Amino acid sequence: MELLEQRILKDGKVKEGNILKVDSFLNHQIDIALMNEMGREFFRLFRGEAITKIVTIEASGIAIAAIAAQYFHVPIVFAKKAKSKNIDGDVYTSVIRSYTHGNDYTAMLEKKFLTPQDRILILDDFLATGKAQLGLLDIARQAGAAVAGIGIAIEKGFQGGGDKLREAGYNLHSLAVIDRMDPEGIVFRHI
Amino acid sequence: MELLEQRILKDGKVKEGNILKVDSFLNHQIDIALMNEMGREFFRLFRGEAITKIVTIEASGIAIAAIAAQYFHVPIVFAKKAKSKNIDGDVYTSVIRSYTHGNDYTAMLEKKFLTPQDRILILDDFLATGKAQLGLLDIARQAGAAVAGIGIAIEKGFQGGGDKLREAGYNLHSLAVIDRMDPEGIVFRHI
Repeated sequence: MELLEQRILKDGKVKEGNILKVDSFLNHQIDIALMNEMGREFFRLFRGEAITKIVTIEASGIAIAAIAAQYFHVPIVFAKKAKSKNIDGDVYTSVIRSYTHGNDYTAMLEKKFLTPQDRILILDDFLATGKAQLGLLDIARQAGAAVAGIGIAIEKGFQGGGDKLREAGYNLHSLAVIDRMDPEGIVFRHI
Repeated sequence: MELLEQRILKDGKVKEGNILKVDSFLNHQIDIALMNEMGREFFRLFRGEAITKIVTIEASGIAIAAIAAQYFHVPIVFAKKAKSKNIDGDVYTSVIRSYTHGNDYTAMLEKKFLTPQDRILILDDFLATGKAQLGLLDIARQAGAAVAGIGIAIEKGFQGGGDKLREAGYNLHSLAVIDRMDPEGIVFRHI
């Protein structure tokens, strides 16, 4: 998606440890007009998939899921990352290794919000090694929900998680795929 | 806001410990159509305040902030709750006592995203004792940003945090204020 690639080139910053900081427009401060265009693009890509629910994981996936859901006219549900008094009993869980934070956490989603009748679209802001997405796929499998698509804002293609999901047969679209990056520049994949 | 009150009566569940579960439509699964009406109502309430930025805190405030921001045509910025590799250097912080989780956490917001030129609207899904809002107000004070308003989806009026903020002079509007609740019923405040 040209608009997103241009914005990454303009405002993204490559840091050591394969970190791409896009926190001025995507995941700390959020440019809602850009996000709206991204939501529209996800709808163009997945509109034929009879999506019943958009699934994401807190925190930075929530904005993109909420904005995109307006086009699909479906609810969103987000997996939570920590045990809270507000989560009771019947939850699906999956342990996820966080690349960003360097530790493990448990994603939880209440069973009543995902069923075998659902055809879900998984949306998230980043895909690197694919660990967060595998956690959501694991939860979808436990629920018996069909995964109709996976939509990602920025895929770090060089970390391989996206290609593994494509090889496994998932209908994955990333709005920007980075093949190489270093402090001097960012190279996008165009296929 | 009639639509929200009706939805709370229909789908909300009162649990022990003053917990109101609204996770089927507000903060786990999210009804985006309802959220859109809430965003429109926040715009009606605060449209005259020359808002430059909407500020919230992860995770459940993000969806409402993102949807509402579409009406104000401003960016959102959300305070983060934990140290991550993606947060560097220059951050405002404030320690917040979590009623829901029963522990303390540190809210962080990068300094470059909040300045004395900003007139902010703080949005969140819940207000109870007001601890989360006080943390965001503390961060706004450090940044020198003007707080033009505070918008809340559901205020638990009986816990007093909202009235304290009103007494302190803040322009606070809650879309639903609960004066009493128990498993048999919920009483809203209408003034």
